[in-house]
Amino acid sequence: MSNAGKTGLVVTAHPGDFVWRAGGAIALHAKKGYRIKIACLSFGERGESQFAWKEADATMEKVKAGRRDEAQRAAEMLGAEIEFFDAGDYPLRLTEAHFDRMVGIYRELNPSFVLTHALEDPYNFDHPNAAHFAQETRVVAQAMGHKPGAKYTYSAPPVFLFEPHQPEMCNFKPQVILNIDEVWGIKRKTFEILAAQKHLWAYYERVALQRGVQGGRNTGKPMTYGEAYQRLFPMAMEELA
Amino acid sequence: MSNAGKTGLVVTAHPGDFVWRAGGAIALHAKKGYRIKIACLSFGERGESQFAWKEADATMEKVKAGRRDEAQRAAEMLGAEIEFFDAGDYPLRLTEAHFDRMVGIYRELNPSFVLTHALEDPYNFDHPNAAHFAQETRVVAQAMGHKPGAKYTYSAPPVFLFEPHQPEMCNFKPQVILNIDEVWGIKRKTFEILAAQKHLWAYYERVALQRGVQGGRNTGKPMTYGEAYQRLFPMAMEELA
Amino acid sequence: MSNAGKTGLVVTAHPGDFVWRAGGAIALHAKKGYRIKIACLSFGERGESQFAWKEADATMEKVKAGRRDEAQRAAEMLGAEIEFFDAGDYPLRLTEAHFDRMVGIYRELNPSFVLTHALEDPYNFDHPNAAHFAQETRVVAQAMGHKPGAKYTYSAPPVFLFEPHQPEMCNFKPQVILNIDEVWGIKRKTFEILAAQKHLWAYYERVALQRGVQGGRNTGKPMTYGEAYQRLFPMAMEELA
Amino acid sequence: MSNAGKTGLVVTAHPGDFVWRAGGAIALHAKKGYRIKIACLSFGERGESQFAWKEADATMEKVKAGRRDEAQRAAEMLGAEIEFFDAGDYPLRLTEAHFDRMVGIYRELNPSFVLTHALEDPYNFDHPNAAHFAQETRVVAQAMGHKPGAKYTYSAPPVFLFEPHQPEMCNFKPQVILNIDEVWGIKRKTFEILAAQKHLWAYYERVALQRGVQGGRNTGKPMTYGEAYQRLFPMAMEELA
Amino acid sequence: MSNAGKTGLVVTAHPGDFVWRAGGAIALHAKKGYRIKIACLSFGERGESQFAWKEADATMEKVKAGRRDEAQRAAEMLGAEIEFFDAGDYPLRLTEAHFDRMVGIYRELNPSFVLTHALEDPYNFDHPNAAHFAQETRVVAQAMGHKPGAKYTYSAPPVFLFEPHQPEMCNFKPQVILNIDEVWGIKRKTFEILAAQKHLWAYYERVALQRGVQGGRNTGKPMTYGEAYQRLFPMAMEELA
Amino acid sequence: MSNAGKTGLVVTAHPGDFVWRAGGAIALHAKKGYRIKIACLSFGERGESQFAWKEADATMEKVKAGRRDEAQRAAEMLGAEIEFFDAGDYPLRLTEAHFDRMVGIYRELNPSFVLTHALEDPYNFDHPNAAHFAQETRVVAQAMGHKPGAKYTYSAPPVFLFEPHQPEMCNFKPQVILNIDEVWGIKRKTFEILAAQKHLWAYYERVALQRGVQGGRNTGKPMTYGEAYQRLFPMAMEELA
Repeated sequence: MSNAGKTGLVVTAHPGDFVWRAGGAIALHAKKGYRIKIACLSFGERGESQFAWKEADATMEKVKAGRRDEAQRAAEMLGAEIEFFDAGDYPLRLTEAHFDRMVGIYRELNPSFVLTHALEDPYNFDHPNAAHFAQETRVVAQAMGHKPGAKYTYSAPPVFLFEPHQPEMCNFKPQVILNIDEVWGIKRKTFEILAAQKHLWAYYERVALQRGVQGGRNTGKPMTYGEAYQRLFPMAMEELA
Repeated sequence: MSNAGKTGLVVTAHPGDFVWRAGGAIALHAKKGYRIKIACLSFGERGESQFAWKEADATMEKVKAGRRDEAQRAAEMLGAEIEFFDAGDYPLRLTEAHFDRMVGIYRELNPSFVLTHALEDPYNFDHPNAAHFAQETRVVAQAMGHKPGAKYTYSAPPVFLFEPHQPEMCNFKPQVILNIDEVWGIKRKTFEILAAQKHLWAYYERVALQRGVQGGRNTGKPMTYGEAYQRLFPMAMEELA
Repeated sequence: MSNAGKTGLVVTAHPGDFVWRAGGAIALHAKKGYRIKIACLSFGERGESQFAWKEADATMEKVKAGRRDEAQRAAEMLGAEIEFFDAGDYPLRLTEAHFDRMVGIYRELNPSFVLTHALEDPYNFDHPNAAHFAQETRVVAQAMGHKPGAKYTYSAPPVFLFEPHQPEMCNFKPQVILNIDEVWGIKRKTFEILAAQKHLWAYYERVALQRGVQGGRNTGKPMTYGEAYQRLFPMAMEELA
Repeated sequence: MSNAGKTGLVVTAHPGDFVWRAGGAIALHAKKGYRIKIACLSFGERGESQFAWKEADATMEKVKAGRRDEAQRAAEMLGAEIEFFDAGDYPLRLTEAHFDRMVGIYRELNPSFVLTHALEDPYNFDHPNAAHFAQETRVVAQAMGHKPGAKYTYSAPPVFLFEPHQPEMCNFKPQVILNIDEVWGIKRKTFEILAAQKHLWAYYERVALQRGVQGGRNTGKPMTYGEAYQRLFPMAMEELA
Repeated sequence: MSNAGKTGLVVTAHPGDFVWRAGGAIALHAKKGYRIKIACLSFGERGESQFAWKEADATMEKVKAGRRDEAQRAAEMLGAEIEFFDAGDYPLRLTEAHFDRMVGIYRELNPSFVLTHALEDPYNFDHPNAAHFAQETRVVAQAMGHKPGAKYTYSAPPVFLFEPHQPEMCNFKPQVILNIDEVWGIKRKTFEILAAQKHLWAYYERVALQRGVQGGRNTGKPMTYGEAYQRLFPMAMEELA
Repeated sequence: MSNAGKTGLVVTAHPGDFVWRAGGAIALHAKKGYRIKIACLSFGERGESQFAWKEADATMEKVKAGRRDEAQRAAEMLGAEIEFFDAGDYPLRLTEAHFDRMVGIYRELNPSFVLTHALEDPYNFDHPNAAHFAQETRVVAQAMGHKPGAKYTYSAPPVFLFEPHQPEMCNFKPQVILNIDEVWGIKRKTFEILAAQKHLWAYYERVALQRGVQGGRNTGKPMTYGEAYQRLFPMAMEELA
């Protein structure tokens, strides 16, 4: 397998998202030799750390440090590097500086694909905000007049939207089922780093199993664990099968 | 290239459709070694033969014979075989016997893909009828209780919908752009068999060019001529790029 | 005003529909000199004659005769002619013979527009059936191979869908508001022919008033009574205002 | 709890459907004192009995008898009565006689609700056919001119669409989550009657668990097992909470 | 009736909105014993006070004072309290401080339901802005890291979207019809406080009557005046009727 | 032709857009005597000037000056005046001052129509931003409390959305096809001012030809070159043909 030099990018609002929703894709491509980078826009410190805030001596610094540590370890276990934007959550508030940095990452990485959130989510507005940010910076990275003179090779990559918590409520359509059988063990083990969200371990194991059944049914090839994605753009093909 | 034994199926309401909408896919896969079969549900004798009816001595038999001959030659030039259902057009009226035969074709062929019309078309109701027929028979072919005892291997294939004449009016979304550069010459030459629809030659050359631009833009790889398809079902992937 | 020779066609499932939904358009164009023809597919004898069935001696013949008489008088008051298909209602069951007759009417009339039901209606399946029938025959009337040899001039007319009883539930979008102020008196008076549906008189007067307010608001020109329609096809324009 | 005299109706294409998709609703309302009737349109003999056809001596009669027996026992375990239409499957072909009988059932039962399939299903065309049939007969049952003179009380009931196998592919929106905790044991046990579809037991247990999580999340009240439904019509309320 | 301690929240862009669109729900729940609070984001001083600006000596202060007074009296007549955000209108410009205050209100009130604008409105962009604000703050109020240490009980309430001026243009679907017969007199009387919008009194009386007819038709129970709402989230049910 | 005093407005994100997408409408209405004004929000200096940035000595000032000059000449050739907002592109960042100026233009011009971008465009976020800006200012211009005391006549004009580069991906529906035959020569010649985008000349000539075919097919009147638009609001009509 010669994927040397290939890269993939994941843009995620909170730490848990890249584990539950894209952990399989990350581990799989890492194993195939891709360099995978996660742009983690917040620590989920306000809205996704209920457990931590129940500690008597919780402070914003402590909560953020705890979640950063978890996210770092989860990324490592999956085989990815991670960069934190620390943009705040609930609500996620992205600035011009974040925008420029994200454009820079696209250009540095020139990824073969980018994974991000679904376009709608009435349960969590940070998610569509992150998706919009990932999309807009992906386009701006093409603009020669953005930081003219910089040296880079960049071609806007295909976008895959990952499955939200309640897919039908987000108008999510599964168009791609990625077979994650060979890395399921890693993904499942990474769940355990997110110790405080133990109630979601079984939930997302069931999601993977349901998508596996669907992946098998739609293709006739056996699949046990799957991850569903929606494509944003047409794909070019050389052959239909 | 070893596609020996692979097959593809095209289900089309009228003869012109498989040329304008899928001629590239047919020629391309034929060239790659696929056996391609076209199920041509009518001769287009009533609604798509205006020229022929202008002849003083036109009769239904003559018109059908003329269109059958054209369709036969077009299929040959593209490298495909063709089976005529003679179900009538404007309106297309499919019977139980047609239904059973179509199920039989799916089982005989066990195709790697099936191409058919878009799901809606307010300009031509034969098109969605044909698409519905192609879909329903594809499912029934899986039923062991349909002609029990028959011997066959069958797995329901992925469905690709071809581009209608006015795509936005049919809620058609191009999800796949097939690069047909290497067979464009054949497709274009096949247009000329459809001598009476000369006004459409340029129209569908422009369609191929526009889709080629889009195929190139969406992937960064050059493409001159394209054919657009919409997928009906999720695809399983082993890698996202 | 010189609309001599111009015609309009209305395809309706039941008698009440052409009064409540298109009475203004009919009266208005009749007044402008159009010949308007109503194709009334059933008498509404089973599902829209609850009052009549409460009579002790009601029979199917009596109920149909009563509704036919009402429909005839309503058409006359609006200035239109009417042809009955007597295809039955609840459910409407259209045959090949009805299909051929409808094609014949399109060709005889060569209308400038056709009005029919909305494409969906979960409260009344006769409505979308009638709309589908109106659309499919409109297309087939173009086919030179349908009754070849017949002499006629025909160009498929623009289609306007009339407003259903509960528009949002039918995914109806008002794209055209027709100003019916100058014929409102006639439309309202025609309501009274439908004596048994007195409870709908006020309902449809309110509909006309609401659409009038919207017509005024969307254009800046005053309008008191309006009728809403949805277009099925793009319109060609020579000027955008 | 005094639901004496209340009834509910389930219209289902194949036997498995009422178990996987509505078994909880059936058992729950049966327990609450409702009389529940299942209209089972086919035995699933052609398309949903793969196991049975693998028997060396399988015949259509044997397969149908086997599935009828299973369906009968499943209905009993859930607390419902069942009526078989024997309309055939793959494809389901409903006749005028089936139509009249279905209208008759609506009038005999005058149900408080009707449960049926989702409106779309590209994996199984019997499902939307059954849903359309359930809807159209529900409306026709209101028509006084359908079998005039009959004595009955009938008011068209609210419609709930049950969750299809791949909800996003069927444009299914979960609008109602029914808490089935108190009858989960019965539903799960009924799965075991469908011995040949053992691979679906775990699949539909996971579906119930996921919907339970969603039911809890959307309401703040704990729920372990849920069944999702989509409403077809607005509901009237006297209070918003 | 024991609704002691229950509360409801209304988030509205301009003063008129809570009267025309939700006046019935407010009065009804107030009568049932709920504490109802209106968060009125602007006075509608720029865009919804055309009459006031026609006064020779109109100033921004006078216009705002006039509309505040009206809104206050309208809230009182309906039985609700009102809090003004004074965020400006045309366009509505909401700040971080407004955001925090709105989160605070959700937590103080812990409402059983929240009513707000439809998600789209091409005639008035303040409306979808207000709806987005109401939704996003509803979610953030759940975040323990938002003002950690605060004491409150909060569970995100169901959201009901109220009917916009031109519902089809806003993709509004009426999913709930609230029976407001018993408070119609109060709602109608409140219209008169909005003296300058006299032309809307009859308009919204007709809206209430049309929704009443639909509420009756969809349920079989008589209803004269209704208010339509769209739900944003699934509802959990214990019984389907 | 007496269109003296009539005006039209075009709101465009970048200079190329008004040529490719609305050049025909501009030239046609200019020829008919309308005063046409283009509000050009940016120079496209960062994202749509790849060619210019390839020059060794390119600077932001030079690029902007070059594109301004081109845009000025293109507007002149089409017969329109142009006002530059210089709001920056990739991303377009519109301020309160831009907002106020745009409102001012609406009031000064009181246009008979406004043309702007489609509502969605995943390839270019400046386009939907511009469309939103054009819509919101169109509404605010009606507010008497916006700069009270100003003297003007203003009625919010109909909105036509112009065709994006990849229409299906933007959910664009062609509802109006404008016949631009008599000004095609001018439009085509204007393409040549955009010398650096030579690869788009043929692309947009093909777009015009395809829309011409569709315009002819939908109306029966011959048309060679067309421009497609989507309407945002219902239109009032006095006659349906």
